[in-house]
Parts: sequence; C-alpha cells; structure tokens
Amino acid sequence: MAKKTKKKAPRVLVASGVNLDLLGRREPGIYGKETLADIQEMLEGSAAGLAGLAGLPGVDLEFFQTNDEEAYLKKLDEGFDGAVLNPGAWTHTSLALADRLKALALPYVEVHLSNLAAREDFRKHSYAAPGSVGVVHGFGGDSYRLGLHGLLIRLAKVLAS
Amino acid sequence: MAKKTKKKAPRVLVASGVNLDLLGRREPGIYGKETLADIQEMLEGSAAGLAGLAGLPGVDLEFFQTNDEEAYLKKLDEGFDGAVLNPGAWTHTSLALADRLKALALPYVEVHLSNLAAREDFRKHSYAAPGSVGVVHGFGGDSYRLGLHGLLIRLAKVLAS
Amino acid sequence: MAKKTKKKAPRVLVASGVNLDLLGRREPGIYGKETLADIQEMLEGSAAGLAGLAGLPGVDLEFFQTNDEEAYLKKLDEGFDGAVLNPGAWTHTSLALADRLKALALPYVEVHLSNLAAREDFRKHSYAAPGSVGVVHGFGGDSYRLGLHGLLIRLAKVLAS
Amino acid sequence: MAKKTKKKAPRVLVASGVNLDLLGRREPGIYGKETLADIQEMLEGSAAGLAGLAGLPGVDLEFFQTNDEEAYLKKLDEGFDGAVLNPGAWTHTSLALADRLKALALPYVEVHLSNLAAREDFRKHSYAAPGSVGVVHGFGGDSYRLGLHGLLIRLAKVLAS
Amino acid sequence: MAKKTKKKAPRVLVASGVNLDLLGRREPGIYGKETLADIQEMLEGSAAGLAGLAGLPGVDLEFFQTNDEEAYLKKLDEGFDGAVLNPGAWTHTSLALADRLKALALPYVEVHLSNLAAREDFRKHSYAAPGSVGVVHGFGGDSYRLGLHGLLIRLAKVLAS
Amino acid sequence: MAKKTKKKAPRVLVASGVNLDLLGRREPGIYGKETLADIQEMLEGSAAGLAGLAGLPGVDLEFFQTNDEEAYLKKLDEGFDGAVLNPGAWTHTSLALADRLKALALPYVEVHLSNLAAREDFRKHSYAAPGSVGVVHGFGGDSYRLGLHGLLIRLAKVLAS
Amino acid sequence: MAKKTKKKAPRVLVASGVNLDLLGRREPGIYGKETLADIQEMLEGSAAGLAGLAGLPGVDLEFFQTNDEEAYLKKLDEGFDGAVLNPGAWTHTSLALADRLKALALPYVEVHLSNLAAREDFRKHSYAAPGSVGVVHGFGGDSYRLGLHGLLIRLAKVLAS
Amino acid sequence: MAKKTKKKAPRVLVASGVNLDLLGRREPGIYGKETLADIQEMLEGSAAGLAGLAGLPGVDLEFFQTNDEEAYLKKLDEGFDGAVLNPGAWTHTSLALADRLKALALPYVEVHLSNLAAREDFRKHSYAAPGSVGVVHGFGGDSYRLGLHGLLIRLAKVLAS
Amino acid sequence: MAKKTKKKAPRVLVASGVNLDLLGRREPGIYGKETLADIQEMLEGSAAGLAGLAGLPGVDLEFFQTNDEEAYLKKLDEGFDGAVLNPGAWTHTSLALADRLKALALPYVEVHLSNLAAREDFRKHSYAAPGSVGVVHGFGGDSYRLGLHGLLIRLAKVLAS
Amino acid sequence: MAKKTKKKAPRVLVASGVNLDLLGRREPGIYGKETLADIQEMLEGSAAGLAGLAGLPGVDLEFFQTNDEEAYLKKLDEGFDGAVLNPGAWTHTSLALADRLKALALPYVEVHLSNLAAREDFRKHSYAAPGSVGVVHGFGGDSYRLGLHGLLIRLAKVLAS
Amino acid sequence: MAKKTKKKAPRVLVASGVNLDLLGRREPGIYGKETLADIQEMLEGSAAGLAGLAGLPGVDLEFFQTNDEEAYLKKLDEGFDGAVLNPGAWTHTSLALADRLKALALPYVEVHLSNLAAREDFRKHSYAAPGSVGVVHGFGGDSYRLGLHGLLIRLAKVLAS
Amino acid sequence: MAKKTKKKAPRVLVASGVNLDLLGRREPGIYGKETLADIQEMLEGSAAGLAGLAGLPGVDLEFFQTNDEEAYLKKLDEGFDGAVLNPGAWTHTSLALADRLKALALPYVEVHLSNLAAREDFRKHSYAAPGSVGVVHGFGGDSYRLGLHGLLIRLAKVLAS
Repeated sequence: MAKKTKKKAPRVLVASGVNLDLLGRREPGIYGKETLADIQEMLEGSAAGLAGLAGLPGVDLEFFQTNDEEAYLKKLDEGFDGAVLNPGAWTHTSLALADRLKALALPYVEVHLSNLAAREDFRKHSYAAPGSVGVVHGFGGDSYRLGLHGLLIRLAKVLAS
Repeated sequence: MAKKTKKKAPRVLVASGVNLDLLGRREPGIYGKETLADIQEMLEGSAAGLAGLAGLPGVDLEFFQTNDEEAYLKKLDEGFDGAVLNPGAWTHTSLALADRLKALALPYVEVHLSNLAAREDFRKHSYAAPGSVGVVHGFGGDSYRLGLHGLLIRLAKVLAS
Repeated sequence: MAKKTKKKAPRVLVASGVNLDLLGRREPGIYGKETLADIQEMLEGSAAGLAGLAGLPGVDLEFFQTNDEEAYLKKLDEGFDGAVLNPGAWTHTSLALADRLKALALPYVEVHLSNLAAREDFRKHSYAAPGSVGVVHGFGGDSYRLGLHGLLIRLAKVLAS
Repeated sequence: MAKKTKKKAPRVLVASGVNLDLLGRREPGIYGKETLADIQEMLEGSAAGLAGLAGLPGVDLEFFQTNDEEAYLKKLDEGFDGAVLNPGAWTHTSLALADRLKALALPYVEVHLSNLAAREDFRKHSYAAPGSVGVVHGFGGDSYRLGLHGLLIRLAKVLAS
Repeated sequence: MAKKTKKKAPRVLVASGVNLDLLGRREPGIYGKETLADIQEMLEGSAAGLAGLAGLPGVDLEFFQTNDEEAYLKKLDEGFDGAVLNPGAWTHTSLALADRLKALALPYVEVHLSNLAAREDFRKHSYAAPGSVGVVHGFGGDSYRLGLHGLLIRLAKVLAS
Repeated sequence: MAKKTKKKAPRVLVASGVNLDLLGRREPGIYGKETLADIQEMLEGSAAGLAGLAGLPGVDLEFFQTNDEEAYLKKLDEGFDGAVLNPGAWTHTSLALADRLKALALPYVEVHLSNLAAREDFRKHSYAAPGSVGVVHGFGGDSYRLGLHGLLIRLAKVLAS
Repeated sequence: MAKKTKKKAPRVLVASGVNLDLLGRREPGIYGKETLADIQEMLEGSAAGLAGLAGLPGVDLEFFQTNDEEAYLKKLDEGFDGAVLNPGAWTHTSLALADRLKALALPYVEVHLSNLAAREDFRKHSYAAPGSVGVVHGFGGDSYRLGLHGLLIRLAKVLAS
Repeated sequence: MAKKTKKKAPRVLVASGVNLDLLGRREPGIYGKETLADIQEMLEGSAAGLAGLAGLPGVDLEFFQTNDEEAYLKKLDEGFDGAVLNPGAWTHTSLALADRLKALALPYVEVHLSNLAAREDFRKHSYAAPGSVGVVHGFGGDSYRLGLHGLLIRLAKVLAS
Repeated sequence: MAKKTKKKAPRVLVASGVNLDLLGRREPGIYGKETLADIQEMLEGSAAGLAGLAGLPGVDLEFFQTNDEEAYLKKLDEGFDGAVLNPGAWTHTSLALADRLKALALPYVEVHLSNLAAREDFRKHSYAAPGSVGVVHGFGGDSYRLGLHGLLIRLAKVLAS
Repeated sequence: MAKKTKKKAPRVLVASGVNLDLLGRREPGIYGKETLADIQEMLEGSAAGLAGLAGLPGVDLEFFQTNDEEAYLKKLDEGFDGAVLNPGAWTHTSLALADRLKALALPYVEVHLSNLAAREDFRKHSYAAPGSVGVVHGFGGDSYRLGLHGLLIRLAKVLAS
Repeated sequence: MAKKTKKKAPRVLVASGVNLDLLGRREPGIYGKETLADIQEMLEGSAAGLAGLAGLPGVDLEFFQTNDEEAYLKKLDEGFDGAVLNPGAWTHTSLALADRLKALALPYVEVHLSNLAAREDFRKHSYAAPGSVGVVHGFGGDSYRLGLHGLLIRLAKVLAS
Repeated sequence: MAKKTKKKAPRVLVASGVNLDLLGRREPGIYGKETLADIQEMLEGSAAGLAGLAGLPGVDLEFFQTNDEEAYLKKLDEGFDGAVLNPGAWTHTSLALADRLKALALPYVEVHLSNLAAREDFRKHSYAAPGSVGVVHGFGGDSYRLGLHGLLIRLAKVLAS
C-alpha cells in the first residue's frame, strides 16, 4: 500500500497529427462538430477521474497538434511515460512514425475519431497499430477519452509490477 | 434537467462468443491469464462508476457466453439498449452475425482482447466492425471496460438528444 | 397422356436460412417490407397455378426457416423432390451447405430477395450456386415465386423423361 | 379496381444478343437443343398466362436478335415498357450496354440459359446486372420465361403504384 | 513572322463515341443536362477565340458521334490534323481503338465529361490515354473546350517547329 | 523398461465433422463407397496392431460424428490424449475450430479422405493444419488409419520422453 | 491410295480482323512494312506448295478483312473447311468471337504477326486460342504461312481418318 | 447583367509541390525545358484573356512552390477562391493533402505536366483527384493554362448561380 | 484365397531429393535430429510388418537419395511398383518432376518431414501432390513410414482388384 | 543471284528438353502417340523441302534430347546458326535457359506439342518466348515442322540482308 | 599518368534519413548498438584508405542526418560529386526523394544497416534503388563503408573516362 | 592481442552460378565487358588489401563457376569459412540452394553485377538473400569486391568474438 502512494502521476502526451487543426471544420458528417479545443477541455475535465479509476494519483497531460511530420516525430522523444496518438492521415502513410515508435520505449494508444472499418480500404491499414498497447476508433472525440482511460490502466499495471 | 433525472439505467448485453469459455486457458501469451469470470467481476465493479461518468443513473448488465452461433444471434434480439460484443473467431467468418446486427436497431461496440493489428492477416477483417459504434482492441480484459465506457457515453448522448 | 395424369404432386421444400426471420424488419431499403409469412402466403396462393403451368397436378409445399445451420442441413435430407433455397448469409460462407447439396440427389433453385450484383463484393460468390438448377435474384419476395416456377418446370421435365 | 381494368398491356422487348442465332447448334451440352425460335414460340404461348398471373391485361412482346452491338443498343431506345435481355457474351465485355441501360428509363431483367456460376470465372461478372430488376440464369430457355414472369410482376407493381 | 501568317487553319475532328447521343438524358447527376448539340454550339462559338490564343488563323471543326465502333475507327482515318476524342465506354474496353490511334499519325486529346477518378475502378483505365497528347476530365462539356484548347496549342507548336 | 510397461493405453478421439454422415452416399467418385461405419470397423480392427507397432499397450478409441459445429468444439474438451480429426468442410471455413485446438493441449492429426491437392483451390487451405502434429490426405478411409498410426507414434514418443 | 486422290481441295478462310487494313502503315517497328496485300500475294504463291506438302490436291483460299466485328463473326459461318485467323485486337477483348468459334465446327489456327510474349501483358491472353488447332506468332507475315501450313496438315489428317 | 458587372476577380492559387523547383533541370525528355518561372510568366500573360473567356472581370493569381509538405498544406487555407494544383510526387503518396482539400471548401483543379497514363503504374493513382473539379495532364506547362481555364469557367458558373 | 498367396512382394522406391543428404545437420528445430540412414533403418525394420498389415507377402525396398534432379527423374523409370517420394525443395519448384510422374504409370505417395502448413507460403504448393495417391506431412521421419503404409495398402488393393 | 547460290545450308539444332524422352508414353490424350524418333524422321524427311521453300540450299539438322538442364544449356553454345527448341517443363521454370539464350546470338523458335492456351495457367508463361523469333504450339509433332519452317524463312532473310 | 595525379578528391555526401538519429537506441536486435557517431568515426578512419584503393587522392566527406524530409531533399542539391544515402523509412514511402535523385545528376549508392530481404514485405520495395549506382544492405554500419567503397570506385572510373 | 595474431587467413569460396561463364559475351549493356577471369584477377589483386582493412592476416580464395546446380550445391559443403555467391538466375528460382545454405553453417554474401531493382520484377525476389550476411548489387564486377570486403569484416568480427 505504501508502494501505491508512491506512484506518481504519469506524464502523458496527447498528440494529434495532420489536419486535426481543422477538426470541426472538416467533413462534419464523418468527424463531428467538436474542435480539438473541445476535446482538450473534455479530457482535462475527465483526466483526474480516469486516473482515479486506474488507481493513479493523477495524470499530467500535454496536448500537441502539428501538421509537420518532423515536429510530431520529435515530440515523441521528450520523456513522456505514455501517449495517446491520433496521427490522422499519417496513420496510413508514415512508416517513419511507426519505426520511431518502435525505437522509443514509449507505450502508446492509437485513437481515431471515425470508425475506420466503415471507410475507404486504405484507411484500414495502420503502420503504427501493431506496436501500440491498443486501438480505439469510432467514438468521435470520446475515442481520445477511452484511449486515455486504457493507457492509464496499462501504466498503472506497469507501475504496479 | 428534470429530463435528465428521468434517464433510466440502460440494459446492456455483454456477449462473448466462441472459445471465450477457454479464456485464461487459451494461449496466455496472447490472451492473458484472466478468465471471463474475472472480466465479469471487474465490469460489475466498475459499471456504476462508468455510468456515472457518462451521466447515467446506472447500467443493467447481462453477461452471456456461448459457442453456439445460433444462440448468439438469438440473444441479440432480446430488447437490449446496447451491447458490448466480443464475437471471437466469428468476427472474421460470420457474415450472418453482421447481417443480423444491421437488421436490429441495437447500438453495439466491438471489443477484442488482443491487438488484432499485430496478428494474422485474416484477423484484420471484421464483418461486424463497419456497423458498430466503435471498436476497441488490444487492452486484454480492459477492452470490455473501455468498450462499455464508450457505449454508455453513446447511449447517454442518444438519450439526451 | 395417361402417363401425364399419373404424375403426382411433388413435395417441395422452401427453406429460408439465417436472419430471414427478421424479414420486414431488416434493412427495408434493400429487402422490402414483406415478411416471410407474406411470402409464404403468396406462394401458397400461387403454387397451384404455377404447377398447372408446368403441367403438374399440384405441388406439396413445406416451409422452413431456421438460424441454426445444422438444422438447415438436416432438413434437406427429408426426402423432398426439390427445393427452393434462400440460405441468406450462409450462401457466401457455408461450404458445408454446398457439399451437402452435392451429396444429396435433391434438385434445388437458389433464390435471393436482393440483386446480389448490386451489393458488396463478398455477396457475389455463392458456394451453392454452381450445383443448383438455376439462380434467381433481385425480385424481392417474388424471387421465391420465380424460383418455384423454375423448379416445377424442371421437375415436370424430369418426370416426363 | 376500376383503376386496374385501365392497365394496358405493356410493350416488352425480348432481346437476345451475340451468337444466340446459333442456339441449338452451339455447345448443346451447355445450351441445350432448343433454338431461339422454339423459345419465342414457348414465350408467345405462355405470355398471356404470365400476364394474367401478374394482374395485367396482356403483354405485347417483340422479339429481337442481333450480332451487331450497335443495333442492340439502338433497339433498347424504342419506347418499350420493359425488357428481357440475354446479351450473350456482351454481358461480360460491353460496358457500353450497361451504360446505355442506366441512361434509359427501361426496366429490364437479365437472363441466361446456362448457370453462369458453374462456368468460367469471366462469365461470373456482368456489367449490366447491377442495374437490372433482377437476374435469372440456369433454366435453359425457361430462363426467358421466368425473366418475363418477373418483369411483368414488376411492371404491374409500378403501374399499380 | 511571315511564316506565322502562312499557318493554315487545322482540320480538327471532335468525335464522341458510344452513348453520347444520350447526353442530357443520361444520368444528369453525373453527366449534366447539356446535350451534345449544346456542346457543339459552345465549341463553335469559342473555336476561333481558342485558335487565336494559340496563334492559329482559325480551326476547321468537324463534329461526329456514333454508337458504331467500326464507324468511329474509320472516321479517324480521314486526314484530320488532330482530334478531340471522347470515346465513352469504349475508352475502357476497346483495345482496337487504341491500336488504331497508335497506327495513325493523328495527334489527339482524350476528354471525358465526368471526373473518372471519382467513379468505378474500371473507368480509371484507358487504353487510349497513353498515346494521347494529354487528357482532360471532370469539367462537363467544358472538357471538350479545354481539350480543344490544348490540342490547338500543340498543333501550333508542331507547325511552328 | 519397467517404465515402458507402465505406459497406459491412451484415450483417442476419432472425430468426423459436417456431412461425413453421408459418407458412401456422397460423390462416390471422390469419396468412395465406404461408410463411416465401415471406417470405424476397420479402425477398431487395426487399432491394437497399430498401438503395438508404436510400442503402446493398446488404445482406447472413441468415435464421434456431428454436423453441429458447437458439439464438435465441445467434444474436443473431454480429456482425450489425442485426436484424429476429419472436420470436413469446416477445415476450410472454421477459424473457431482452429482457435479452440490451439487453446487446448490436445495433440491431433488432420485427415481427409480425398487428395485435397487435386480439388478446388478453396480446399487447399486449412485453418487447423498448421497446429496439427501432421496431415494425411488422399487415402480414402485409410487416411484415418494412417492418421491414427501417426498419432500413436507421436503419443508413444511423448510418453517416453 | 485411290482414297487419297479423292481428297478434294479444302476451302480455307484467311480472315484478318480490326486494324489489319493499316498493315504496313501501323508501327512498322513491331509489325513490319508488309501490307495485307503482300501477305495475300505471298500466301497465294505458296498455297499450292503447302497443300502438296500436306498431301492435299490444293487449297481454295478466301481472303477477308474487316474492322466490323459482326461482319467477322458472320463470315465464319459460310461453310469453310478451316480458317487461319488473325483477329487483331479482338483476340484479347472479344469473348463473342471465341464463343462463336466454339459453337461452329470450324477448325482454325490463330496467328499473329508480332511475338505476343514480348509485348504488353494484356496481349498475352487470347479468348480464342484455347479452342484453336494451334497458335503461331512472331514471324511477321510468315505467321500466316506457317498457320496455313499447320491447318492444311491438320485438315489432311482429318480427311485421312 | 448588372449582376455580372459586380463579379469580382477571384483570387486563385497556383501551387506547385515537391521537386517542381527543378523544372527545366529535371528529366527534360519527360518534363520539357520550361522552368516554373516560364510557366508563371506564360500564365500571367494569358490570365486576363482566360478570365475574359469565362466572363470574369479578371483573376488575381498567386504563385507558390515548396518542397515542404506542411507549408503546402498551410498555404491552401489562406482564403483563396480556387486553386490550380500540381502536387508533384505528393499526388501519389500524400493522403494528408487529399484529406485537407476535402476539409476545406476550396475548388481546385489537379494538373500534371506529363501524361501520367504513359508512365509508371504508381503514378496512375492520385489521392486528390477524386475531390477535384477536374484533372488535366500531358500538356507540359500548358496543363497549368488549361487547368486555370477550367477553374475560371467553374468559378464563373458558381458565381453566376 | 489361393489368389492371395500368389501376390508377390512389390518393388518400392523410397526416393529422397535435394538436401536430404543433410538430414540431421539441417535446421534440427524443423527437421529433427534423425539422419536419412536412421530413417532407412527404421523403414527396413518396419517394412515387413507394414506389408503384413496390408495383406502383402513382403516388400522389396530400394533407397535412393540425390541432389541431381536428372538422376532423380531417371530413377523413377526403373520399373518400380510404387514409390514413396520426398522431393525436398523440388516439390515446390520442379514442374519437370510432376510431368514425369504423370507420364509414368507409377503410383506414388508424397511425404514431407515437416508440417508444410506451418511454414512459408511457397512451401504450401506442390506440383506433384495432385497426381499422387496421397500426401503425408509433419511426422518427421515417421512420414516415410506412414507413406509406405499407405502405399502398400493401395498396392494391395490394386493387386486384389 | 550469284549471291543466292553462295548461301550455305545452315546448321540448325532441334533440341527437346526434359521428359520428351517419354513422348508417346506420356499422356497420349495431350501429347499424341508419336515418339521423338517419329518426329525426327518426319523432320529429316521434310527438311530439304522446307529449306527449298525458304530459298536455302538445304539444312544441316542436329537432334538432341536431354533431361539434364546443364547439358541443354551447354548444347546451345556449339555454334549453330539457329535452333528449334521445345524445352518441355523448363519453358515455365528455367530463367537460366532464357538468360542464356539472350546471352548467345542464336536465333531460335520455341515450339510445343500441345496447345498451351488450353492447359494449366502455369503453362501459359514462358521465360524464353519473349526472346524468340516466334512461337508455335498446338500442332503435335508438326509444331516442330512449322517451327523449322519459320526458322528457315528467318535465316534466309538474315542471310539475304 | 600525369592525368591521374590531377584527379582531385571528390566531395561525397553521407546522408542518413529519418530515425537514424536513434541508431543504437533503436531495436538493437535488428540495427545493432552502433550509433551514427560511431559510423561517422569509422568512415572517417577508413575513407582515405578506400580512396586509395580506388585510385583517388582522397575523399572529402560531409555527414548529414535529418528527420525533416524537405531538408534531406535540399541537401542533395549542394553540388556533391556523389552520395551514400540511407534514407531510412523514406526509402519505402518517398517518391519525392526518388524523383529528385533522378532530376539531379548526382551518382548515389543506397545503403541499409539491416538485411531488407529478411524483414517485412513493405521494406522490400525501394523507390530510389532503381536509379542508384548500386545497393548494399545487411552489414550493419559497415554497409556505409562498403557503399562508400563502391561509390569511390565508380567515381574514379567516371573521372578516368 | 596475442589472440589477434593467431587469427588465420579464412578460406573463402567465390562461387558464380549459371551463365556466368558467358560474362563479357552476355548483354554487355547490362553486365559490362568484364569476364569472370577479369573479376578473378581483380579479386586476387585486392584480396590481401581487403583482408588487411578487416584486420585479418590474409584470405585464401577459391574461385568456382558451374552451370550445374548440383555441383554448385555440393561445392558449398567443402568446409569454407565463408562465401561470396553470385548464383545468377538460380537466385530467383532455386529454393534448393536457399535451403542448403540454411542447413550449412556457412556465412555468405549475395552479390549481383547488375542493379536488380532496375530490372524485371521476377529478379527482385531472391530465395537466398534472407539468410545471407548481406547483399550487394549494381556495381558490376566490383560487387564481388565489395561483397568480399563485407564478408571479411564479418568473419573478422566473428573470429574476434
């Protein structure tokens, strides 16, 4: 138990990739009306609760969005304890991202707003998914929430072991 | 607001398909040591909390597992408000299941214990996924928990609209 | 001619497979509003006429629907003279059904309510079609009627030869 | 009811395409010994009866066969109420035919003498089938009869609506 | 300069293939409401201007449409200086057309009313496109205008060299 | 050596799947005239001899056939020491069976009456074969005998080690 | 021997299809400078000799070329004893031609001027080749000569048997 | 008419992507000797004329070239009325570009200097083409001119409607 | 019965192909530690017993191994009554071997040490398997024993018929 | 003319590859009853005549057959003026043969007894065909005769040029 | 000879692409423990020797690594005499890189640390390899050394010619 | 250090496969004018130097070329410490070679004269490459030199470890 109280709040990156700056403006029929700011607000509001459910004292979230692939790659290497990643279109085209994730020791969850299984065939393949803790897609902005939930459970288990 | 307090606890089916009776005995390297009973216990313990997070007064869970495809198909038509489904191998082979889900008005989330993206190619196609609310895979037994979380958020939104 | 009057009314199975219990409830845009009971009534009403057109003294119809593949397989082996089969999703996934039909001496017509050529690619392949007398699809419930018509003509020819 | 008696006999084209002039001479093991003239005679004999079954006062049939693709395309645009089409080999190679059928407002049924599902792979694709009312194949000359039956039912429904 | 004034107006064929006689009647959602006569009128109105832009003294247009593939093939060999071709469905099925174009010394531009990239896969392959000066598609009837513009620029360059 | 005499006769399941009830009635050109009862009799007659060849004191055979996939799956989990399996058409379509076999600790041999390499392409893939001890096909009913022979050799080696 | 002298000179069709009117003008790097008239002259000059080598009293050649597919199909049904066919591009696109050849009792040899194995992939498939006596390609105009030689040998054997 | 005079000159982006800085240096056999500056000059010279042909009072062109994908994506979101895009190699690899174009309300024409149909297979697929107004390729630098022409006609129609 | 005693011991070839000289040295994880000499000894020890089980008076075995494909082909034509063949890598690459086996009247069983279904895809195709009596793979050196058993049963049946 | 009389009789290799030693014994339904000796005799009988037809003073034939691929490769490099090659199964599997033929300056004709277009798909690809003068298949032993005829015509042209 | 002494030391770029900054940290099982700095040091140590072996007076190496694709593209255009390139993941996804290399006159060698033939299928295709002098992969950091060796030999030959 | 001086010169096989006897005669545009003897001479001249660079006291080279696959397979098993292999066409067709290399403990480098990435698709697959130390291709005869260099570095590391 003393052990548990020693657990510190993990630093978690929530990184959205290319075109997610347009969220809310982009094809609302597929992606909904929420903006990335809405999602950030929602996550900030629910983070403590999700950490509590996972048995963690809290979570230190950092939000990031870029359309610059190099910046995205670089961000991953800043010492986070885990990441919730929505790489957008890079999911399907960037082997570089997947290779970097394999090279770093960072546990990550891959999330998507839309249900990829219901879209074009080329959105059904993800370079990064095989190396992830798990994948969540189809729940709109809530995919981030579920992904964070799943990541925190995993981080708590790792810390406990 | 008065409206909100009237929301009733939705009836949710948690249905595990073929071979999930073997959970804990089956390839622990891939599926972990948890049994289905462990998962049920965990879900029962966290259901009220997840419902609360989603703004619902509670949730009425029914657990079901069968290796008989017809029984699985039949179960879906018992008036549930939503379902968390892990159809096991049927995910990849049963068009009948996907057709039935499309024919019924049941919102469902598809969950898998293992990260399908990291396994054989034939596990990357799901007949049922395109019609689902969303998909969660890779988190072991916690995939059920995240899937239930996502379903409850969705049901709350539907009830609120 | 004396020969003709000796022809007896053939026993014909009309067997609908998985999910056809939902007919009328299932995707009416594709499958229409007719229920299986409506189709049965329509067939019963037109059977004598179709038999007459084919030069048969009548036809003894047995209707059957099941979501249980084994029950469907078993039904085929009850001594019918012919069958009108709509196996639903099993059409595309059940090699077992096609193998059984080849093993039995039962002439059968394969029917589908929707126009399979206008749907998903995986609905364009039928395991059972190559062994059938013929195939009818796209006419809604009338596909059964046309299929029965075609089967009776065939049975009449066989009896006449 | 008064409405019904006003229904006039529809004009229906029965158009056979390339090589069907050889029917009876061509691979009798696959196509049978019937000639196109035999089929025409049979259809003329059964047309009134089929129209009656469909609740129509009659049907005005026009028979047509050509090996000239342009002539076939042109024929379709002569103001028919519906068509029974057996385009022969053009079924599998003529995108022009399918495009023309989509461009015209002509309801049509696609028929084939042989069971296409039991033949070469390239006979399993039809450009025209997706736009048809329905498809009938495998019943020899009787495919025309069943196709006409199905077309008349459809025309009667359209007239009744 | 004296050279330039010697340039004579080139003879240009504008040849539309199968089903383009139906333009305006055919799937207006895809092909628009313009008829081929409208396009001819528009081209006749803008031809002199386009020729002027290209530095040519004028252009002598001949319009042609046929549903008869042989007639189309034959037309190409009547001594034109260039051609704007919309072969319709033959684009995707007629190797004969592409072979003939390669055999003749006729510079041609391939045009299509609809955006082929947004349609069925089989419309994405053109036998004739590789041998063309260039391809224009998606601008409705204006594809002809742009194609003519491009052809005239090319012809002017050839004449100038 | 004393060790060897302690070896007990292993319990071996001989399980035939869907449509094998029709053996002898089904396509005799491919499957022969033997019935499943004939094969059982033959195996009972040779079991002791084969066990002897493998250095085992005997073998306790249980015969099973069903067309019900769930029953087949269930049977596998009744504590056998090994199994000779002919899953019939399920070989090629049931991922559920293969997953179950991987999950259980049961050594099994896959057998088929016909030479699968000489049949349709879809019979060349077996979900279960990769997890088997080995595969025997093409010897008619004797495939069972050879498969049992191979299984017993394997079981003897395992017991000896 | 008396038998041999009774052999009459067979009537042989030499039919060239689409675009072969352009021979000599068309891509001389691939097809050479010979015109169809040159080939006809060469064949007329060598026909008697080839017939003699085959033990035939002579051969009655009829030359035919058309760009009209229907005319080509029709020509085949004029009672020839055999045919040397170069269908040009139709080789690769006309199922109608192959079906007609199968329907008629006409022995034919398929010839091509160019070596199809050294060209585009789509020229490697011929619908008509499987039903032919044999195929000759790559020898320029001499492919006709060799094809005629082969056909005459075959006709002589048929006549002798 | 008064309405027409109110039309203002649209702002149009002409954006060239990766490696187009090398134009004139890069494979002149495929891309020609023109530099991007030459093309800009040519477009500036003909823009007013093309606008006039389209019934527009003028056009306000902005030229842009970059090898930095992020910069290209960003440029698109600067409030243009339309765009002529030559994304170079990104055409075939950047799903991000196509997604962004779908998310923005910008009408665009896709242009390429070379005839893509005559090059490697991987240049035949464009992620962005399906969402474009239309596509022009094969006319060298004049592809830009034709693309601008097509875009202006479209913008004029939109403004007029 | 007198007939049976007349059966003579068949001459059977046991031919191992390329690289099987390395058995025991080659990837023991896949192929085991047994050498080809071990297998020969085992077969010699069990041959009489297997012959007895098959009702044969004995069997005359000849063992052969070569890495020279021509020598292997030649060996097959030395008048054996049957053969047990393990062609090694030639299984998957030598059409010549399969053709020769079809050309000779030699009944043969194809055997492999490893379970081919669990290895690389290119090991799943065998040129020779379709023409064999049957196939046995996965039992290590015992595949030879089972293959011999199967061959002897077949030879006994042929002799008895 | 004096030139012509100087032409010397070319040395021509007639080389048959693997399994052609079995000709007459091998699948007579496909390959006929002729032996290789019969074909040699026939060629020797007709060689002078064929040479005469080609305007050559004669031909010096050398016959060769081997099942040893290296011997076949070596034979090609013995200074022949041309070759008629029937490589048997090597046609479809030996890249080495095709590479050697390209490396040597030897004109060759590829011949096959059977009509490859009517056989298995893997017999439709030939490594060597693209580099040949031409291909002849389907005429039984006469394929050699036609191939020799074609080769001699080619050699005569080369000598004349 | 005097000529040789005039050869100047070529300027050679050694450019490592995306994720190679992680070398030593990234999957050491595949990529080894060497860092990029180690490789640079090793190359600097051996460059003079390799130049000497190639007959060059020396070599002027410039090392470069970036995760920014645009920076990589730009670097190539700085007037080097040759380049040793390890583009990392861009090898398999960047058509832009390959196009730029074709457009520039820079001789380059492509190198990879791991043996690409032993990894995922998508690593077996390189856009840039066809335009390179040659390719070296599998030798860890020594791939750079061998690639430099090969490049210097090539540059020496070019300079000598 | 004393250890290092004990390193003995490794025995290295340089084995060239089928058709490399023709080097210098074979397609010089692809393979260059060097003969195998030239390459041997060059290697002999540089071997000591390369060994020195690798920190080895020398290297004992054995050169071998054969067109006989069995001889090539056999040569590999003569106790070499390593090999530089250019199997020619066998690279792409001989699974036997790859299997043998895996079975032996011989480290080898695969080399090719031409740049395989720039040639036919079937030359892009190598059976042997995945098991090699590394691959070098495209440098003409220098590929052997670089391959030897790479092998010696590897052997030195192995000896040092």
